[in-house]
Amino acid sequence: MKKIEHIGIAVKDLEAGNDLYEKLLGVAHYKIEEVASEGVRTSFFQSGPNKIELLEATTEDGPIAKFLEKKGEGIHHIAFAVDNIVEEMERLKKEGFILLNEKPKKGADNKLVAFVHPKTAGGVLVELCQEINNLQ
Amino acid sequence: MKKIEHIGIAVKDLEAGNDLYEKLLGVAHYKIEEVASEGVRTSFFQSGPNKIELLEATTEDGPIAKFLEKKGEGIHHIAFAVDNIVEEMERLKKEGFILLNEKPKKGADNKLVAFVHPKTAGGVLVELCQEINNLQ
Repeated sequence: MKKIEHIGIAVKDLEAGNDLYEKLLGVAHYKIEEVASEGVRTSFFQSGPNKIELLEATTEDGPIAKFLEKKGEGIHHIAFAVDNIVEEMERLKKEGFILLNEKPKKGADNKLVAFVHPKTAGGVLVELCQEINNLQ
Repeated sequence: MKKIEHIGIAVKDLEAGNDLYEKLLGVAHYKIEEVASEGVRTSFFQSGPNKIELLEATTEDGPIAKFLEKKGEGIHHIAFAVDNIVEEMERLKKEGFILLNEKPKKGADNKLVAFVHPKTAGGVLVELCQEINNLQ
């Protein structure tokens, strides 16, 4: 794990979330991106060396819709940047962590991503992400 | 808000948490510190330019004990570094955020801290923190 790449926060409404987090962080979001395969629309804020990603559900049965229904708005995941996502997935499996996907998949912001099951990671949904133009 | 200073994660047992997050992050914690006034014992991990703070309850009625009882282990707060905590608290109040403390208080890791009510911040408990040796 190199560093925290971003913090993912689930919001009911992306436009209202953008307004709120602009006031909180003192900067505006710099892009909006939909990831149809995950049923989410996202927006990104730069926060020093990290990003804040807001996540709005676009389908009723996607992971963000389920999270909002169960827990309401709030922090959804922590994403860590890694140099080689396949090697990091192997390392974590050997350490006893359970991964939610067997292979990396395409996420927002030009990343390959994989998730660690929160039941094996102290209740935290951990995302690994690798820049796609940084494939090794 | 300059940057994310740390992510606070509530754990039931600090030693078990230290073992788990050492495996996850690939680095060991570098210090343990008790904040008796808050009823917590904390440990810190460096993660690139940020820190991960694990929080264990030391009293049955403190904020971490209540969080664990209500929500179980997981992400408790995001802390942002600020240059002048009093000015940032004033700015946020003017923007409509409700602060959980009227004045900054002493937190872990040589910081003055203040919290924003999660009901006014999209379900996220936001901490502001300023290095005590950086008082202005």
